[in-house]
Amino acid sequence: MELLKTTAGGHYISFASGLPDPALFPTQALAEISEEVLAEDGRQALQYGPAEGHPPLRAFVAEMLHKRGLADATPEHILITNGSQQALDLAARAFLNPGDPVLLETPSYLAALQIFDSHEAAYLPVPLDVEGMDVAQAAAQILEGRPRLLYTLPDFQNPTGITQSLARRQRLAALAAQHTLPVLEDDAYYDLRYEGAPLPPVTALASNPLAVYTGTFSKTIAPGLRVGYLYAQPPLVTCLAHLKQLTDLQAGSFTQRIVLRFCERGLLAPQITLLRETYRARRDALLEALADLAPGGEEPWIQWTRPAGGMFVFVTLPPGMDAAALLPPAMERGVVYVPGASFHPDAAPRRDRAGRGANTLRLNFVSANEEAIRRGIRLLVETLRETPLEG
Amino acid sequence: MELLKTTAGGHYISFASGLPDPALFPTQALAEISEEVLAEDGRQALQYGPAEGHPPLRAFVAEMLHKRGLADATPEHILITNGSQQALDLAARAFLNPGDPVLLETPSYLAALQIFDSHEAAYLPVPLDVEGMDVAQAAAQILEGRPRLLYTLPDFQNPTGITQSLARRQRLAALAAQHTLPVLEDDAYYDLRYEGAPLPPVTALASNPLAVYTGTFSKTIAPGLRVGYLYAQPPLVTCLAHLKQLTDLQAGSFTQRIVLRFCERGLLAPQITLLRETYRARRDALLEALADLAPGGEEPWIQWTRPAGGMFVFVTLPPGMDAAALLPPAMERGVVYVPGASFHPDAAPRRDRAGRGANTLRLNFVSANEEAIRRGIRLLVETLRETPLEG
Repeated sequence: MELLKTTAGGHYISFASGLPDPALFPTQALAEISEEVLAEDGRQALQYGPAEGHPPLRAFVAEMLHKRGLADATPEHILITNGSQQALDLAARAFLNPGDPVLLETPSYLAALQIFDSHEAAYLPVPLDVEGMDVAQAAAQILEGRPRLLYTLPDFQNPTGITQSLARRQRLAALAAQHTLPVLEDDAYYDLRYEGAPLPPVTALASNPLAVYTGTFSKTIAPGLRVGYLYAQPPLVTCLAHLKQLTDLQAGSFTQRIVLRFCERGLLAPQITLLRETYRARRDALLEALADLAPGGEEPWIQWTRPAGGMFVFVTLPPGMDAAALLPPAMERGVVYVPGASFHPDAAPRRDRAGRGANTLRLNFVSANEEAIRRGIRLLVETLRETPLEG
Repeated sequence: MELLKTTAGGHYISFASGLPDPALFPTQALAEISEEVLAEDGRQALQYGPAEGHPPLRAFVAEMLHKRGLADATPEHILITNGSQQALDLAARAFLNPGDPVLLETPSYLAALQIFDSHEAAYLPVPLDVEGMDVAQAAAQILEGRPRLLYTLPDFQNPTGITQSLARRQRLAALAAQHTLPVLEDDAYYDLRYEGAPLPPVTALASNPLAVYTGTFSKTIAPGLRVGYLYAQPPLVTCLAHLKQLTDLQAGSFTQRIVLRFCERGLLAPQITLLRETYRARRDALLEALADLAPGGEEPWIQWTRPAGGMFVFVTLPPGMDAAALLPPAMERGVVYVPGASFHPDAAPRRDRAGRGANTLRLNFVSANEEAIRRGIRLLVETLRETPLEG
């Protein structure tokens, strides 16, 4: 966040943010819909509403999640939240007491780590490979560390871009169900898939009364509306809705209706198609630029992930290189990224300074167009080449 | 909330809700403004924004609070929240650990009690009289109970409608400052004043780095937009903004801009005037109906508060009468209210069943028009008269 503020005014090519491209927002359609909602349903759209969310939007989300594989989804399984960030926070608040261990893949989503930090969580980190969380290690951690929550990002994980394979999902789901372990499955990027068939959520693959699946319209419609959702079994939804109510009463009555009308009008599917095509081309541009510019061969100098969707490519530099130390010279050249150590729980509270992942960095490939991406990667690779290895 | 759901479909005269009258929402103006915001500033209005809030809205709120007596208010003193409910929750999250004692006037705002319950707070209740919280008792509780938070509603308190006198505010402010006691001052109803001059907030009356003052546009513009705010010293705002960020990243970029434009266009003051005139007439209708119908004289049978603003009149029945037990026969007649025991912290978790305030009830006077109010009070008094005293 501080990095974003620092670079907001400058002329940087930014791979740092987690922001979607605002040029792709369906602004005109949302302007028309906003006026219509207030003209036709203004009194309800401006009044208090139920903590669980606007009933027809809950029904729409239930149907959408049914298609993702959550076969029992009904409106009573859905809670509407202020983006999926709030869904994560509510689940953490429901499940965690101070000191409780959280099992999670590392690196992981920074703002989720901040939530867990705020609950003084302990961490049981499990490394990722190209198929996702190492399930054998997860099983060992469950037995040894007795976690109170499993946190996982199954699709195009932030920050690595890695997608969990179906086999891993099945094993994780079975493990959690067997140990009555609450699952918090963060699937914010589900719709941003650029290749391959969608996979069912972990939550869909075993009966677990303590599983919470979260998603959002922030990545597909617009984040500024703050409309996300969670799916869980109805008794757990009732508990989470009570927490939601005391937290801020409800999600916005107006913005929920805007999102619903946008979807009911059939605008969500073409918007997702537009995003997929645009972002896929940007991902390809970034991957090609990296392949062209970074010396490869049998023993590649730097390595990077090849995400099937989402917003991020994760780069691993040779051991001994420090992505945080490289940021100032990169910024002098005019390019910005997020050092990967930020995404590790180990180094809290000064997570950005030390700890694992010092030789990694995250690149957002959706904010800039292809030409800027190519230029940015050239500047980045120049920086990396001119920097002597430490130690 | 359950009561509202039960009665939502029926033809009740409802004194039960905390809802403003949706017929008074500035729906047309908000429809025009919504379209304009997206047409002129759509990309920013739909994008992520700072956790602290939209900077020009923070500046507007700072200027507004400066006029209320918070003389040092700058944009850095302001955090924009999802209604003032979230401001209360963030402050509780910042200040309270499980078991910490909260000093508060009783009865008090139900959803704040639910927040404190969620932090497993202990309670140091202080009774109210016509001037507000009994400050001598508060002083004793501070010495004996060592509270970690003082929660107070200075204006037209929910549920009693009582306004704290200036002298009490000064003493409370001095007490809290002297004991380095965090203050959470909930001033959601400030603008809904129907008589008398506005009084300065407790937070303005002593230098206290741990004082948080909260307000909202829910009561003046519309609750469905979910835009509220808090004022605190900048270091505390930084801490609360960090909590806000992990909770749900930020308040809605779109709705914050709608509120700002509504205010900048000079529409807030006339809207407040409209609400004051309409709600004042309804308050007067309710007070007159009570005076006409409830037998009075030297020794009045029932007693009620005469609020100078806000939304609620609080009724005290003779000792031994149970407002919760009277609710079913009242509903049979077609009138609904909230039994006053709900607003006491003592009886948690089954707050609605027992405990202090069993012979009290809260009446919302802003939801219905004068004719319905008169009819509703007649039905209520009939119910009270026909019900034999218990015990």
